[in-house]
Amino acid sequence: MSRHALATPGDDIGAYMEQLGDAARQASAAMRRIDTGRKNAALLAMARQIEAERPALIDANARDLERGRASGLDDALLDRLALTQGRIDAMVEGLKQVAALPDPVGEIDGLHSRPSGIQVGQMRVPLGVIGIIYESRPNVTVEAASLCLKSGNACILRGGSEARESNAAIAACIARGLAEAGLPEAAVQVVATTDREAVGYLISMPEYVDVIIPRGGKSLIERISREAKVPVIKHLDGVCHVYVDASADLGKALAIAVNAKTHRYGTCNTMETLLIDAPVAAGLLPKLAAAYAEHDVELRGCERTREVLPGVTAASEDDWYAEYLAPVLAVRIVNGVDEAIAHIERYGSHHTDAIVTESYTLSRRFLAEVDSSSVMVNASTRFADGFEYGLGAEIGISTNKLHARGPVGLEGLTTRKYVVLGDGHVRD
Amino acid sequence: MSRHALATPGDDIGAYMEQLGDAARQASAAMRRIDTGRKNAALLAMARQIEAERPALIDANARDLERGRASGLDDALLDRLALTQGRIDAMVEGLKQVAALPDPVGEIDGLHSRPSGIQVGQMRVPLGVIGIIYESRPNVTVEAASLCLKSGNACILRGGSEARESNAAIAACIARGLAEAGLPEAAVQVVATTDREAVGYLISMPEYVDVIIPRGGKSLIERISREAKVPVIKHLDGVCHVYVDASADLGKALAIAVNAKTHRYGTCNTMETLLIDAPVAAGLLPKLAAAYAEHDVELRGCERTREVLPGVTAASEDDWYAEYLAPVLAVRIVNGVDEAIAHIERYGSHHTDAIVTESYTLSRRFLAEVDSSSVMVNASTRFADGFEYGLGAEIGISTNKLHARGPVGLEGLTTRKYVVLGDGHVRD
Repeated sequence: MSRHALATPGDDIGAYMEQLGDAARQASAAMRRIDTGRKNAALLAMARQIEAERPALIDANARDLERGRASGLDDALLDRLALTQGRIDAMVEGLKQVAALPDPVGEIDGLHSRPSGIQVGQMRVPLGVIGIIYESRPNVTVEAASLCLKSGNACILRGGSEARESNAAIAACIARGLAEAGLPEAAVQVVATTDREAVGYLISMPEYVDVIIPRGGKSLIERISREAKVPVIKHLDGVCHVYVDASADLGKALAIAVNAKTHRYGTCNTMETLLIDAPVAAGLLPKLAAAYAEHDVELRGCERTREVLPGVTAASEDDWYAEYLAPVLAVRIVNGVDEAIAHIERYGSHHTDAIVTESYTLSRRFLAEVDSSSVMVNASTRFADGFEYGLGAEIGISTNKLHARGPVGLEGLTTRKYVVLGDGHVRD
Repeated sequence: MSRHALATPGDDIGAYMEQLGDAARQASAAMRRIDTGRKNAALLAMARQIEAERPALIDANARDLERGRASGLDDALLDRLALTQGRIDAMVEGLKQVAALPDPVGEIDGLHSRPSGIQVGQMRVPLGVIGIIYESRPNVTVEAASLCLKSGNACILRGGSEARESNAAIAACIARGLAEAGLPEAAVQVVATTDREAVGYLISMPEYVDVIIPRGGKSLIERISREAKVPVIKHLDGVCHVYVDASADLGKALAIAVNAKTHRYGTCNTMETLLIDAPVAAGLLPKLAAAYAEHDVELRGCERTREVLPGVTAASEDDWYAEYLAPVLAVRIVNGVDEAIAHIERYGSHHTDAIVTESYTLSRRFLAEVDSSSVMVNASTRFADGFEYGLGAEIGISTNKLHARGPVGLEGLTTRKYVVLGDGHVRD
C-alpha cells in the first residue's frame, strides 16, 4: 500500500483490514527506531490537537449522541458515549501524564557474564502491533493510542459503531499529532468502517497483529477470546472476596468490608462475597449489617449467616459465583482459612482477594495459596488498580495467568528479548 | 475421583482426561503449600528410584525399541527413543541439577509503599497445571516432570506412543519419588493411553490446564497451536542469521560464521542464512567458502555471492525462508545494516540473529531494531540456549512474544501476581 495515505475501507473489508495490518507491521518496525523524546513529543502534540479541536469533538460527539438517542440506546450507554468538556480535559491530561511516564523500552535487566565469556541480559521491547477492540467510550481511543505509542507499539483501534463520528474526530487529532512529531502515521490507525466483519479479520491476522486487547462486556471478551487466532490480554469477571479471620482486628475488618463493597458498585475490584470466620461472625455481622443498611446494600447469606441475621435473603449456589456489580453482597460463614481458601478457589474468578488478619502465619499462607491476580492482607480489594499500584496508567486488568496478570500498564505492553554481547565468542 | 489412586483409562477417553485434569488441578493447589526442601527431596528421591530401576527401564525400553523396529521406525527415531546407560545417567544427573537450582516461587519483586499507605509488590507463583506433549524421547518425561515440579506446578505429560513402555516405567519411578517425599501423586501424571484423542482433550480443558508446551516437530506444534483452547508456549522454527558488517573484525566474523553453522546442524539456533555487507564480501567469502568446504557445507548464494564464488548454487526465494537443519547455508550480500535488518524482518523467524561489527552505533541499532527472541553482537547464534544463558535448565525455546520469549527455564513456568500489604487501609 501507499506510504503516503492510510488505507480507506472499500467493499472488501478483508483487503482493507489487511492493508491496515501491513501498514501497522511496517510502522511497528519504524517505531523501534524512535526514541523516547520523539514519542513524548507526539503525545504532547496530540494533546494540543485535542485541545484545539474541542468544538469539533463536541460537534462530532453530538451527532453520535443524536443518532444513539434516535436508535434507542439506553441512558447508561449514552452516558458512556458522551464527550463532555470534563472528559476532554481528562483526555488532554491523560496524554500529558503518559508523556511524563518513564519509557520501559530498552531497559536491560540482569546483564551478567557467563563462564563462556559472553554477557547475557534481557531487554524490554515493544510487543509489535496491538489490536484494541472496545465499545462505546470514545476516550478509550486516546487512552489506548497513548499507551501503545509510549510503549513503542503500533496499534489498530476498533471502537464501537455508536461512537464512530467521535472516534473519527479523535483519530484526526492523533494523526496530526503523529505527523507533527514525524512519527509514522500508521503507528495509530483507527478502523474506519463499522462493518462487524472488521473485528473478525482483526483477530485473525497473526502475521500482522501480535496481541488483541478487548475492552468491554464479558460477552464481547469471551467471544473474542474464543475466536481469536492471536493471543488475547483479557479481563473476564471480578468475583472478589474479603475473608475476615477470627484473628482479625475487627475495626479494620469493618472498615475494609464496607469500603470493598460500597466504594463503587460497578467496578471489577469490588467485593462480591464476604467470608467470615465462624468465631467472630456473631459479633461482627450485626455491625456490618447496620453499615450495609446505611448504603442500601442487599445481603444474601448462607444458612449460618441467616441464623445471626434472620432478615437476610438466602443465598443460592449461583450467588457464590455472581459478579453483581450492584449493591448486593453474598455473605458466608466459614470455618477458618482453609475453608475460605477452598471457597475462593471454587467460586472465585482469580481477580482480587483479601484476608483481614493479625496473624503472621495466616497472612503468609493466604498470600502464597490464593491464586489470584491480586492478593491482599488488611487492605480493600478496591486498591487493585493500575494507578493505585503506581503503574501510572492502565490499559485494563488482566485475568490471564500468562504474560501480564492484574493491572496492565506500559510494561504489560512490552516483552523481553535476550541480548548477548560477545567479542568474537563461539561455542565449544 | 479417588484421592488414593491415579485415574486409569477406560473406553471413555474424555472422562479419563477430565479425571487427570481434575486431579492435577487439586494437586496444583496442594503444591502451593509445599516448600522448596520437600520439592527437592522429591526430585532426589526420583533420582534414586531411576538409579535403582535401571534394569527395568532398559528392559521396558528394549520392548519399545523392538516394537519400533518391527513397525519400521527409521534409525533417527529409534536413536531418539533409545534409553542408553548414558542417557539414564543424564536423567539422574538432571534431577540432581534441578534440585540444586534456586526455587523461583515466592520471590517478591519491587515491594514499595504507595501514597495511600499500602505496600505493593509482585510475587512469583506457579502457573498451575502444565500439559506437555512430546514425541519419542522418553528422557523428556523426567526433564519435564522435574522442571514443572520445582516450579511448583502440577503437570500432565503425554509422550509418544512409540515410547509407551519406557514412559510407563519412568512414570512409576516418578510416582514412587513423589510418594517418598509426601507430595501429591497427581503432581506428575503421565497419560496412560496412546489414543490420539487424549491430546485433543488435553489441549481443550482451560478449566484444568493453564498452559500447553508441545515439544516436537513443527507440524505437531502448529497443529496444537491451532487447535488449543489454552495458551501454548511454543517453539516454531529457527531461521537464524549472522550479519557481517563492513565494520566487522574479519577474524571474529570468520570464527562466528563457521561456528554458528557447523557446531551442530540439527539445532534451532544454528545459522541458516549468512548476510555479508558488500564492501567485505569479496575479501571474506573465499575464506569462508574454504572453511565451509572442510565441513562439507553446501552453499546457496544470491547473484552477487555467485560473482565472487562462481561454483556456488543459486539460492531461490525459498532458500531465504529455509530452516535446513543440515549442512546447507544460504548466503546473501547486502548493502549495509538496513538491508540486513530488512532481510531478517522479512525472511527470519524471530528466533536468534547476530551482527558482527566493531561499530558501537551499529551494535546498538541491531540490538534495538532486530525483533528476535535472542539478538547478539559478536557471538555465535549457537549460544541461544538455557544452559549457556545460565538458566540452569531449559524446557524449550519459546518463539512466542508474550510471556516467555527465548530459552525457557524455571522462571518461564511461573507467573507473577500482585501482593498488597495494608494495615486496615481503605480507598478514599
